[in-house]
Amino acid sequence: MAMNILVVGSVAFDAVKTPFGAVERMLGGSATYFSLAASFFAGLRVVAVVGDDFTDAEMAVFREKNISTAGLERAPGRTFFWSGEYTDNLNDRVTLDTQLNVFADFQPKIPAEYRDSELLFLGNIDPELQRNVQAQLSAPRLVAGDTMNFWIQGKPEALRRTLGGLHVLVINDGEARLLSGEYNLPAAARSIHAMGPRILVIKRGEYGALLFVDGKVFCAPGFLLEQVCDPTGAGDSFAGGFMGALAEAGGFDQAALRRAMIYGSVLGSFAVERFGVERLRRLTRQEIDARYCAIQDLVRF
Amino acid sequence: MAMNILVVGSVAFDAVKTPFGAVERMLGGSATYFSLAASFFAGLRVVAVVGDDFTDAEMAVFREKNISTAGLERAPGRTFFWSGEYTDNLNDRVTLDTQLNVFADFQPKIPAEYRDSELLFLGNIDPELQRNVQAQLSAPRLVAGDTMNFWIQGKPEALRRTLGGLHVLVINDGEARLLSGEYNLPAAARSIHAMGPRILVIKRGEYGALLFVDGKVFCAPGFLLEQVCDPTGAGDSFAGGFMGALAEAGGFDQAALRRAMIYGSVLGSFAVERFGVERLRRLTRQEIDARYCAIQDLVRF
Repeated sequence: MAMNILVVGSVAFDAVKTPFGAVERMLGGSATYFSLAASFFAGLRVVAVVGDDFTDAEMAVFREKNISTAGLERAPGRTFFWSGEYTDNLNDRVTLDTQLNVFADFQPKIPAEYRDSELLFLGNIDPELQRNVQAQLSAPRLVAGDTMNFWIQGKPEALRRTLGGLHVLVINDGEARLLSGEYNLPAAARSIHAMGPRILVIKRGEYGALLFVDGKVFCAPGFLLEQVCDPTGAGDSFAGGFMGALAEAGGFDQAALRRAMIYGSVLGSFAVERFGVERLRRLTRQEIDARYCAIQDLVRF
Repeated sequence: MAMNILVVGSVAFDAVKTPFGAVERMLGGSATYFSLAASFFAGLRVVAVVGDDFTDAEMAVFREKNISTAGLERAPGRTFFWSGEYTDNLNDRVTLDTQLNVFADFQPKIPAEYRDSELLFLGNIDPELQRNVQAQLSAPRLVAGDTMNFWIQGKPEALRRTLGGLHVLVINDGEARLLSGEYNLPAAARSIHAMGPRILVIKRGEYGALLFVDGKVFCAPGFLLEQVCDPTGAGDSFAGGFMGALAEAGGFDQAALRRAMIYGSVLGSFAVERFGVERLRRLTRQEIDARYCAIQDLVRF
C-alpha cells in the first residue's frame, strides 16, 4: 500500500508560446503538475488556492486522477496567471506576465484529515509558509521541498530555517549554484547538505538530474525525446514522479531513491510532449513503466 | 592483442587562461590529446606536422607512452599555436589567437609502415585531406572522424564525400546540429546516419555523450569532478579513450561501443583535471579502470 502525499504549491492558468504553437489559457501551476505526475503511484492531497474563474472543467483534471481537492481553497478574485515564451531551442524562456491574483495572499490551511499525511512536498512558495505547512502535519515520514531564486535572494534567513527542517531538497542546477555560492555541483551539494537536507536532487533540464545522498552521487539521464512541445512543468512533473515513486516504494534507501529518480525523469519527459497537462492527463502506468525500461536500456553497459 | 590506431590531426602549442590560472605555452593539439588518451589501450601512430620550435621535451611526451612519431613531420617554421580563455563557468571559451604556421600547408604523408593501420581516426582537418589519408591505408577495420563548424560551413561538399566513407563520426552537439540542420538530437542523428556514418557519437561537454547506432541510443554520463581546471582537449581525449577501448576490445558491437563510450568519458574527465596534457601524462591504467567503476556506480539503479 503506497503512502499518501500532501503537496502545497500553485495552481494556475498559464499562457505559453513555443516554436510549436501557442495556448492562451491552460491549467498549470507547480502543484498541478506535481500531483498529476505523482498520482500514478500514490494518493494525492493538494493544498492550493484558486479564484472564481476556476471551473469544474479544471476540477475534473484532478478528479480524474483521484487527487483529493479538499485543500484546494477558493478565494474571491482571479487564479494565479503566468505567461511565458520559449525561444527556438526550448532551453530559454522569457516570462511575459505574472499576475499573482489570489495567490498573493495565500495562507495554506491544512484540512484536519490531511494532518496525517506521510510524505510532504513543499512547492516553491514563501519559505515561511513552507515551514508553517510542515508544522501543521502530525508526523510526516519524509519532508521534501523546492525553492526558487526569488526566495534564495529575497528571504535567505527564512529559507535557511525551512531548509533546516527538510529531508529532501529538489531544485535545479542554477538554484543550487545560487543557494550555495558554488559553481561546482559536488561542492554545491556539500554546502546544501550542511544547511539541512540529507537528500539533494539537482535537476539539469534535458540532461536529467543528480541525486546526492550519503556521500554518493547518482546520475539520472534525461530521456531523449523526438520532439519537445512545451517544457512548462517538466521540473514539477519530475518532482511528482520522484515523490510518487518513493511513496509507492514505502522506503527511502539508496535503491528506492535511485529508482525514484528514474521515475522523475520519466514523468518529466512525458510532461513536455504536449502543451500543459495534456500528456499527463492521458498518460497510463503502462506507458510510464515502458519508458522506465527504455531508460534502463539507454544507460546499460 | 589490441589493434593499432593511426591518428591524423594537429600537434600544437596552446596558451590557455582559466579561472584557475594561466599557462603561456604548453603542448596541445587534437592529435596530442587523442593519442595520449588512446595510448593506455593500444599502439598509437601519429601523423601531424610540427615546426622548428618543437623540441625533444615535447617529443618525450609521446615517447613516454610508446606512441610512434615516425609520421610526425618536421617543417621549417613555427608549430601551430592556439590561444584561448575560458570564462567563469568553464563552458564558454574565447579564442584569442590562432596561428596556423606550419599547419597551414599540412599535407599528411602516411609512412609505408603505417599503411596497415587497423583503426583510423581523422582529426578535424580539411575534409579533403581526411579523404586523402584514408585512401593511403590498405584496409582499415574502422574509420572514424571528427569535423568542425569551419568545414561544415566552408567545405560542405568535400565534407559530404568524407562522411560517406566514415564508419564513425565523433562530434559535439553544436556541430551535429549545424551539420544536420536539426536541433533535436535524435533527428540530427537520423540525418547524419543518412550521410554515411553508421556509428555516431555526439559529445555534450560536462553532460557526457550520446551514441547512436543500429537504431539504439546510449547515454554515457559525464563524470562529476570536484574541480575542472582546464577544459582544453576534453573532446579529443574522449575520442582517444573511445577509440582506444575499441582497439583493445578488437570488435565494434553494441556492447563494445558502449563500454568504449564510458572509457571516452573517463579519459575526457581526467584530461580537464590539470592544465594541458599534464594529467594524461601521469595517469595510470589503474586510475582509468577505477573511474570506469565509479561511472558504473554513478548510473546503476
